[in-house]
Amino acid sequence: MDAAEFRRRGKEMVDYVADYLENIEKRQVYPDVEPGYLRSLIPEEAPEEAESYEDVVKDIERVIMPGVTHWHSPYFYAYFPTAHSFPAMLADMLCGAIGCIGFSWAASPACTELETVMLDWLGKMLKLPEDFLAGTEGRGGGVIQGTASEATLIALLAARSKIVKLIQADHPDRSETDIISKLVAYSSDQAHSSVERAGLIGGVRMKKMPTDSKFSVRGAALQKVLEEDRAAGLIPFFFCATLGTTPSCAFDCITELGPICNAEKIWMHIDAAYAGSAFICPEFRPLLNGVEFADSFNFNPHKWLLVNFDCSAMWVKKRSDIIGAFKMEPLYLKHDHQESGNQSHWQIPLGRRFRSLKMWFVFRMYGLKGLQAYIRKHVGLAKEFETLVRADQRFEISADVVLGLVCFRFKGSNELNETLLKRINRARKIHLVPCQLAGKFVLRFAVCARTTESRHVQEAWSHISHLASELLQELPH
Amino acid sequence: MDAAEFRRRGKEMVDYVADYLENIEKRQVYPDVEPGYLRSLIPEEAPEEAESYEDVVKDIERVIMPGVTHWHSPYFYAYFPTAHSFPAMLADMLCGAIGCIGFSWAASPACTELETVMLDWLGKMLKLPEDFLAGTEGRGGGVIQGTASEATLIALLAARSKIVKLIQADHPDRSETDIISKLVAYSSDQAHSSVERAGLIGGVRMKKMPTDSKFSVRGAALQKVLEEDRAAGLIPFFFCATLGTTPSCAFDCITELGPICNAEKIWMHIDAAYAGSAFICPEFRPLLNGVEFADSFNFNPHKWLLVNFDCSAMWVKKRSDIIGAFKMEPLYLKHDHQESGNQSHWQIPLGRRFRSLKMWFVFRMYGLKGLQAYIRKHVGLAKEFETLVRADQRFEISADVVLGLVCFRFKGSNELNETLLKRINRARKIHLVPCQLAGKFVLRFAVCARTTESRHVQEAWSHISHLASELLQELPH
Repeated sequence: MDAAEFRRRGKEMVDYVADYLENIEKRQVYPDVEPGYLRSLIPEEAPEEAESYEDVVKDIERVIMPGVTHWHSPYFYAYFPTAHSFPAMLADMLCGAIGCIGFSWAASPACTELETVMLDWLGKMLKLPEDFLAGTEGRGGGVIQGTASEATLIALLAARSKIVKLIQADHPDRSETDIISKLVAYSSDQAHSSVERAGLIGGVRMKKMPTDSKFSVRGAALQKVLEEDRAAGLIPFFFCATLGTTPSCAFDCITELGPICNAEKIWMHIDAAYAGSAFICPEFRPLLNGVEFADSFNFNPHKWLLVNFDCSAMWVKKRSDIIGAFKMEPLYLKHDHQESGNQSHWQIPLGRRFRSLKMWFVFRMYGLKGLQAYIRKHVGLAKEFETLVRADQRFEISADVVLGLVCFRFKGSNELNETLLKRINRARKIHLVPCQLAGKFVLRFAVCARTTESRHVQEAWSHISHLASELLQELPH
Repeated sequence: MDAAEFRRRGKEMVDYVADYLENIEKRQVYPDVEPGYLRSLIPEEAPEEAESYEDVVKDIERVIMPGVTHWHSPYFYAYFPTAHSFPAMLADMLCGAIGCIGFSWAASPACTELETVMLDWLGKMLKLPEDFLAGTEGRGGGVIQGTASEATLIALLAARSKIVKLIQADHPDRSETDIISKLVAYSSDQAHSSVERAGLIGGVRMKKMPTDSKFSVRGAALQKVLEEDRAAGLIPFFFCATLGTTPSCAFDCITELGPICNAEKIWMHIDAAYAGSAFICPEFRPLLNGVEFADSFNFNPHKWLLVNFDCSAMWVKKRSDIIGAFKMEPLYLKHDHQESGNQSHWQIPLGRRFRSLKMWFVFRMYGLKGLQAYIRKHVGLAKEFETLVRADQRFEISADVVLGLVCFRFKGSNELNETLLKRINRARKIHLVPCQLAGKFVLRFAVCARTTESRHVQEAWSHISHLASELLQELPH
C-alpha cells in the first residue's frame, strides 16, 4: 500500500470509525461468542501472497466485531471507564505517522519536551503542589506511564532502592539482599491487585491494611502496624495509598497517613487511577488534600480524562529518586545533550511512543472547562442512578457515591445478588461487573461511555428493576 | 468535536500524514533545536476555554515538527529501525476506535483471541518449534508485550519464581529472600542495557559473559562461570541469550548454550529484538537454530516487520510458568469463562490495547512473501553499504554484516572516529549513532526506513566519504 492508497483507505477508515461510534448503541454491548470462537473463522497460517484491503476490511464485521465488548457503548457500565475522544484519536494518527521512539532527548526532542510540559499543564489543572512540577528548574516532574500498575511498580522500586542506599550509608556491611528481606510495604485491603503484584515483582513483603466502615485506611491503623513491624525487626519503607479504590471508589485518609509516612521516612505513593481526573474540578479537589505529603502520585487520564489508552500520568517530587534507581547509559544512547533528560529512565520499557500529543490535543480542544463539564456530567449521572436505587425499597446503596460509581445490591443474600447479576449480563442489554464489600456481593454501576445520557441511565435502571422483579417473583415466599 | 467533525478532520489528518510521509526526505532528518526549545513556544497552562482544531493543527508545524527526529526518513540510519507501514496505521485507527482494554477474555474476547492466533501465525512464519505455539491444546503460546525490555523482565521473574518453588519443594525451610540472595543470572557483555536492568528490578545478580572475536557468547565460557558460581554456593537460574546484539548484531551461540542451560536447569530466554524478523526468511532461519532449547523467545515485529510500535512478540513453552508467577484475580475481573485465559497474566501492565489488529492487517496485506522481500531488501542495502566501505582503504568493517547493520570505522584512533561522527551528525544530512566494540569507537549504519533505496545509501556513503576526506586533510601529516 502506497501513500496514494493510504489516502483513500484512511478516509474510508475514518468513516468506518465514525459510523461505528455513531451507531454503537445499536450493537449488543456484550458479545455472544464462546471461548475459542475466533480461531475457526480465519486461516491457520498467514497468507503467502498479499491479500487485498477489501478482503481484510470485510473481515472486521465477520471476525472481530462479533467478539468485541463495546466499552464505548452507553450501555457499558462495567469496570471503570476507559477514555475515548475524537481529538485523542486524531493525535494518535499523528503519533503513528511520526512513529518516533522517544528513549532519549536526541531520539526526538519534541517527544521528550512536550511530555514534560503536558505533565506540568496537567499538574497545574490538579493544583498539585509546586514540588511535583518540572518547570525549568524544578526537581520534580511528571512522566507518562503505560498503566497505573507500572507507576506503582516504579514507585515501589524507587523506594526500595532509596531505602537500601540509606541503610547502607550507615551500615556499609549490610547486603542489599539482607535489607530487602526485611522490607515491608503497605496498601489498603481495597487496593488494586496490581499493588500486590508490584510487591511480588519487587520481592518485598506487602501487607494489606484494614479499612474503616467507609473502606478507607486510617492513620491509627497504619501507626499500629508500623509499631508491630518495627518491633519485629522489619523495615517499613513504602505505603501505597489509594484515592478511589476499584471496588467502591473509597479514599484512604492521606491527611492522616501522609504525616506518619513522612515522620517514619516511608515513601508514600498515591494511586488515584480512576478518581484523579475529577480533581480538576474545585469541588472534588479536597479529595486530594494531603498529596503534599506524598513522594509520588499517579492517575490515569486514559480512564476518565478523554485521553485514549495508554496514558497514565505519574509525578514525583524528586526525579533523582527514580532516575537513580534505573539509569543505564550504553554508548548507543549517548548524545550531545545528555543532561537534558528523558523519561525512559522513569519506566520499565526503554521505548516510548509520542503519547503527549494526545494530551495536547485533548486539553486544548476541550479546554479545562470542557473537561470539568465532562466529569460533572458523569458524576451527575451516577447521582441520578443512586437516586433511582434509593427510591426502590428492595435495594440498598453499599458505599458512598462520591464520583461516577454506584455500588448497590438487593437487600438479601449474596446468592440472590449473584443471580441478579448473571441475569443482567446474560440479557446482554447492559454490562456490569461485581465487587465484594465487607463480605457482601455487590453490583457496580460505573458511568463509562462519553455518550452516556440520562435516558440510558433511566433505561438501565428500569431494566435492572424489571429483572429484579422477575427474580423475586420466582422465589418461594 | 462530534462524529461529523471527526469525519472531516480525520480525512484532513489522513492527508497530512500522507503528505508528511511522501515528503519526508525534504525534511532535515535530525532537528536543530536546543534542549528546552518547546516550553517557550506554548502557553504555561492549559487553556480554560476550548480552542479550535485549526489552532491546534497549525501548531504541529510550528511547535512539534521543528523538534522531531524523523525516524522514517531514508536518511535515518541510527539505532535500529522502528516499524512503520500504512496497514499498521489503519489497524491502529480501528484499535483506537474500539478502544477496549483487554485485561481478561470477557473484557473483549476478540482482543484476547486474535492475539493468541496471530502469535501462532507469526510463530509458524518463524518455524518456531511446535512447543511454543498455543494451537487449541498446546501448553505454550505467545503474547504481545510492549517492548523487549518487558519480555526480558517477565522471563526473568518467571524463572525466579520457578527456581524458588523448585528449591522450596526440596527445602521447605528455606525462605524466598534467602534463595533470591543466592541467585545468579547471565547475559552477554554485548546484551542490551535492559537485560541488566531486569536483574536490577528482580533483585538478582546479573553477570555479563565475555564474548569471542565475533562478539558471541560461547558454551565454554558459560560452562566455566557456572562451575565457579556453583562452587561459590550461588544458584545459576537464568541465561538471556541475544540473537542480534544492539552494538553489532552479533549472535550468541545458542546451539552450544542451550544444551548446557537445559542440563543445568537454567531458564534460557532468547532476546532477538531486532534480528528476529529476519528469521521468516529461510536463508536466515539457521540463525535461530537452538531455539528448541529455550524456555522463552522474544523479538520485536515493531522493529523490522512493518508493525508499528508497540508490538514485541514473546513466546513461552509453558504458559503455566509465566502465569503462575503473576496471577491475581480479584472479583471485579472474574467472569463466566474464567478458564479461557488472557495475556494480562503474562505482563507487567494489567490493561492492554487491541494490538493484534496491526499484526493481522500487516501479515495479510503484505503476505509472507511481501514481508520476506522487505527484509531481503534491507539486508541487500546493508551489503551494498558494506561494499562501499570495503572499497575505501581508509575504512574498515568492524563486525560481520549479517543483516541490516554495518559497523565500520576509520582505520585510526577512536578520537578521529568520534570527530567524524560528530561532523556527520552536525551536518544533519544523515543521522547515525556509535557503539563500542572491543574498546574501539565504531560507527553504526543501520538500514532503517521503509523507503530507503539504493540511491539513499549511495548518497549517504558519498557524504560520509566526503566528510572523511575533509577531516583527513585537516590532520597534520
